Amino acid sequence: MYKLTKLESGVCAADGFYADGVSAGLKAENAKDMAFIYSSSICEIASVFTTNKMTAAPIRHFRAKGDFKTNFVLINAKNANAMTGKAGIADIEEILTTLPKEIKNPVMSSTGVIGVRVPKERLIAGAKLFDLTKREPNSAANAIMTTDSFSKEIAFRVELEDGASFNIGAMAKGAGMINPAMATMLCFITTDAKVSKSEMQELLDEVTLTTFNAASVDGDTSTNDTVMLLSNALSGSYNREAFRDALHKIMLFLATEMVADGEGATKMVTYKVTGAKSNAEAEVVAKALSNSLLVKTALYGEDPNWGRIASTVGASGVDADEETLSISFNDLCVYKSGVLLFDAAMEERASAVMKLDRFTISCDLGLAEGSFTSYGCDLGYEYVKINADYRT
Amino acid sequence: MYKLTKLESGVCAADGFYADGVSAGLKAENAKDMAFIYSSSICEIASVFTTNKMTAAPIRHFRAKGDFKTNFVLINAKNANAMTGKAGIADIEEILTTLPKEIKNPVMSSTGVIGVRVPKERLIAGAKLFDLTKREPNSAANAIMTTDSFSKEIAFRVELEDGASFNIGAMAKGAGMINPAMATMLCFITTDAKVSKSEMQELLDEVTLTTFNAASVDGDTSTNDTVMLLSNALSGSYNREAFRDALHKIMLFLATEMVADGEGATKMVTYKVTGAKSNAEAEVVAKALSNSLLVKTALYGEDPNWGRIASTVGASGVDADEETLSISFNDLCVYKSGVLLFDAAMEERASAVMKLDRFTISCDLGLAEGSFTSYGCDLGYEYVKINADYRT
Repeated sequence: MYKLTKLESGVCAADGFYADGVSAGLKAENAKDMAFIYSSSICEIASVFTTNKMTAAPIRHFRAKGDFKTNFVLINAKNANAMTGKAGIADIEEILTTLPKEIKNPVMSSTGVIGVRVPKERLIAGAKLFDLTKREPNSAANAIMTTDSFSKEIAFRVELEDGASFNIGAMAKGAGMINPAMATMLCFITTDAKVSKSEMQELLDEVTLTTFNAASVDGDTSTNDTVMLLSNALSGSYNREAFRDALHKIMLFLATEMVADGEGATKMVTYKVTGAKSNAEAEVVAKALSNSLLVKTALYGEDPNWGRIASTVGASGVDADEETLSISFNDLCVYKSGVLLFDAAMEERASAVMKLDRFTISCDLGLAEGSFTSYGCDLGYEYVKINADYRT
Repeated sequence: MYKLTKLESGVCAADGFYADGVSAGLKAENAKDMAFIYSSSICEIASVFTTNKMTAAPIRHFRAKGDFKTNFVLINAKNANAMTGKAGIADIEEILTTLPKEIKNPVMSSTGVIGVRVPKERLIAGAKLFDLTKREPNSAANAIMTTDSFSKEIAFRVELEDGASFNIGAMAKGAGMINPAMATMLCFITTDAKVSKSEMQELLDEVTLTTFNAASVDGDTSTNDTVMLLSNALSGSYNREAFRDALHKIMLFLATEMVADGEGATKMVTYKVTGAKSNAEAEVVAKALSNSLLVKTALYGEDPNWGRIASTVGASGVDADEETLSISFNDLCVYKSGVLLFDAAMEERASAVMKLDRFTISCDLGLAEGSFTSYGCDLGYEYVKINADYRT
């Protein structure tokens, strides 16, 4: 057995990790827009990147280095350094060479507008403001935000039975362009657990499927999506089960926080799909629901329009039948195996559920045992406003 | 050779066809909400229906009849008769048995809210108002509208080389829940061409792929989508090439009219994708572009954000490379094979294109010869308003 205790110290929760944010003048009004994560001891890295074919320059730069260890990640907001070709890679190399000598194999990560060269001089000047002795995780988490309305951090102390312990913490950004295949989201997880690179990668891949890849704001997948897990092993201790649990809690928390912070979103909805012919078919349905514009606008209107849920299930392409389908809003079953249950009294109760900030829509396909859970939000006027005007 | 001449008479353009709309009290303020199409002579039928597994009762009723001929289609708006189970089928049977004796094997078609029984008595009373000698195609086209802001009709006279001729005309409804796999759209095409049932079905299937199935408003596929082609053969003449051309022009016109009338849409955009590894891959890209929320909101904001186009191409999952990709707004190339062309002067010219009601975004993937063209619209505040409040 093991015990998890929540900590407030984000990416600085693990021993030997430092972080802070500074202003390089990319955001208006001198808001912080550049952050670093530094480890006093060199780190193994596990990573998951976007499936977008137009991979941004920082990801190409990372991949080109092959197998390596690092003690430093530099992150900038406002410019994604995507669709910038070889010049975008050269810009990264030039910026990273200006960093102090104690930094080994630095990694860069960017988020923001696509198709514009990064303001190299500003970033080089910004990096000179970094103080590697600072432990300001919240400052770093704020610096990497773009359209986010709040910063996203979490950390745990993991105590094992034998008295040993390790810490794991993370920060993330993301509020739009978020889709079940990794999106305009960055997430950095730091730990002092003594975990091997291969095991970190295996767990990161596995946990991504049911957390970040189960979250959707708008069905768009960006050029820059990155989840990076850094371990400096300084605690000297590790337990796979406890580590996996903490990692899952961290990634699920950050994924649902992103959805709750979905651009213009007023509510976060969990779509629990069961009874499908396979887990894969349940996943198709769950993601179809979290991405349906008609479902999302009904949520925004707080309209318990279960017919759109049924139609979206049917349109998803997997095996489904109105005679076996059941639909519930939280515990309220509104349609059961082909029987119309909906009347004025039920509509009133269903409307009350729809007014909640967070609730669950369950769809039991009634065919077999396949299940999957996804996370989505509503779509309202603010989403349109934010995305019609994003560049300006 | 043959000659096409546009006619104004919609579904009544072909010899022997009659149509009108009446009010059965389903829409507010006695607006017309029920329509019929009647042919004085029995018709062969070809049809394409939704791919949604939650198929609406009218489609199940149609399919259950097997192979048959008809001279009558009854259409109602405001209620889709979907997710209504066996009761929904029984409602249709009861309504259709009340029709006059000269009507053979009547067909019903419905559009509107999902998951509510049809108001049977009102529809039976409404059908008694039909006058089968009326030729009011526009009245019929208006009666079948739901969130449409204008009616959609077109017709052609087709004159063949040998002096023979036939007519073909159509009406359609649809403004939302429109997706590249048939949507909340109904389309009825009538002709007096002497065409066999099998050839009608073959041509209808073929032309659907590049017209209705290439159009998207919101990526949602409804329970009721129907395209029905009725021929009474009264002209005695037919020519495959001319018929196919007229059918294609009719279906493309109606598909793009639906997109232009997309809920809250202010512009209609043609996405011309070329240079893909196959036509199928080009189709995936073209449909990803017309369905991307980030692209649609950029269109609404009249923002020439070509980076979102590139990102959507990359996210679509097909082979693509920033070094070979080129993107144009009408004739203005904004990104060419890995070279950033965009500057302030180009932005001004691109913005001018974005302000047009209709324009073309071309993506040349630069890899091979695969091509596909899709049709989409922008997404603005009105879409949210219409869909957040649809049931109320």
